[in-house]
Amino acid sequence: MSVHTDRSAVTVLGLGPMGRALATAFLDAGLRTTVWNRTPGRDGELVARGAVPASSPEEAVAAAPLTVVCVVNYDASDAVLRQDAVAAALKGRTVVNLSADTPERARDTAEWAGRHGVRYLDGAIMTPTPTIGTDDAVLLLSGPEELYREHRPVLAALGGSHTHLGEEIGRAAAYDIALLDVFWTAMAGYAHALAVARAEGVTARELAPFAQGIAAILPPLFTEFAADADAGTYSGELNPITSAASTMAHIVHASESRGIDASVMRVIEGQARRVIALGHGTDGFTRVAELLARH
Amino acid sequence: MSVHTDRSAVTVLGLGPMGRALATAFLDAGLRTTVWNRTPGRDGELVARGAVPASSPEEAVAAAPLTVVCVVNYDASDAVLRQDAVAAALKGRTVVNLSADTPERARDTAEWAGRHGVRYLDGAIMTPTPTIGTDDAVLLLSGPEELYREHRPVLAALGGSHTHLGEEIGRAAAYDIALLDVFWTAMAGYAHALAVARAEGVTARELAPFAQGIAAILPPLFTEFAADADAGTYSGELNPITSAASTMAHIVHASESRGIDASVMRVIEGQARRVIALGHGTDGFTRVAELLARH
Repeated sequence: MSVHTDRSAVTVLGLGPMGRALATAFLDAGLRTTVWNRTPGRDGELVARGAVPASSPEEAVAAAPLTVVCVVNYDASDAVLRQDAVAAALKGRTVVNLSADTPERARDTAEWAGRHGVRYLDGAIMTPTPTIGTDDAVLLLSGPEELYREHRPVLAALGGSHTHLGEEIGRAAAYDIALLDVFWTAMAGYAHALAVARAEGVTARELAPFAQGIAAILPPLFTEFAADADAGTYSGELNPITSAASTMAHIVHASESRGIDASVMRVIEGQARRVIALGHGTDGFTRVAELLARH
Repeated sequence: MSVHTDRSAVTVLGLGPMGRALATAFLDAGLRTTVWNRTPGRDGELVARGAVPASSPEEAVAAAPLTVVCVVNYDASDAVLRQDAVAAALKGRTVVNLSADTPERARDTAEWAGRHGVRYLDGAIMTPTPTIGTDDAVLLLSGPEELYREHRPVLAALGGSHTHLGEEIGRAAAYDIALLDVFWTAMAGYAHALAVARAEGVTARELAPFAQGIAAILPPLFTEFAADADAGTYSGELNPITSAASTMAHIVHASESRGIDASVMRVIEGQARRVIALGHGTDGFTRVAELLARH
């Protein structure tokens, strides 16, 4: 069997917490797993579990038809992949880049890969390290359908749900960016809420069960607003943006009267006020999405 | 039976969508429900269902031992309650103010109520209009425990879970502000994500199932971070704030390269960078809560 069609081997470049989790899942699935990390000393536990340590990235990628890259960003993956020896060793093989970055970096990497005869899929891991290898893992992939089908059996070792988002190579990164945007903005709201609560003598643990209740309201609203957004109609029947802006002003005032920085909510309130000033005061808050695109 | 201990009657001041939902729930529970609204013409459907229309707020509050106020904010509730005739009619009776505003406005209203012999509870409704009268309603109340116990049987008609947060009158508003802070910040993140996704050719409906998945990650994280925040330890073991800041930079870059305003995420990234500059780069993102309180 040629190495190029060997479905029992995989290489992992990058052994941070996520890279180690990926390699562990491949080992647990019985795959011959070759590992490499720029900084040495990260592979000890993996080698003890049967991983093959490589002394260079070119040696690592030559050991399997499929290389999974998981480093901090595309500056880091470029530094590893875009070396003559590595590109030569990758010729005809497949790279799945699970490092996080922007859609344009994924497109640029696809262009580089095309020039060097490297087969390329881009991907994003949407769930934390402990989910890898379990049913809870969520992976998004984009790039050639045929390549996705070919490597799906090996990638299945990572567990959970895998979605091929389409052939356009930037899609996985686009989803990743949009979803991390939701996540980190929500986390910023929670961190701010904890500061406000504390200033009012409310502990985080007292607030937490109610914060969970609020978080539970979000998923159905996300779906409702998605339909609105695609249709370009932003119903404010139950909750017009004027009412949202009034609430936001309360949040800013209550925060600042306690000496809490409210700069994030000030920006959000400003966006709501601009939507109102543009004549959409009876619409719902998500019309802000239109405003953001034409600033 | 004196009107002051009459548990079969209640008054609702303010007949916006939420006020009408409250009055409807009281009517459905068989209570004699008197209603009033500053702008006439809002009580038609309620009167058809058996509500008693009052021609003035003083007439309305005199009709029951308990008055529930639900107007746009405390400027509006002050304008109704702080009239001599209304204050006189309220003497010895109870007001539950479910209007949304800041903790300091609740405290100011309690002080006014105390001066006029009006018994006062402050409250917040944490769920949308359609939940009122159902198991899904969530009400928070603060103020004298004895007053809460006395009126609980009538307020129970509003359905769902009612939590008495303590005697300090500002607590319901403090929780309300903190929880709305989480809600609206998360919504702002979602609106932004929709704009970024659209610019990348991803529809809101394509993104929605994954956005739901992200929202589902939040509740357990909220609880985990609450314990951290109360302890003043912000573990960044799995996800240090340096990594969060790097993700935020990707979001800003991916947005702005597509012409999407990223000002909210720019502020959030700036907060993360300041935490790192203060020497807490290995901590988790929620250490931002400490930063916000000392700006």
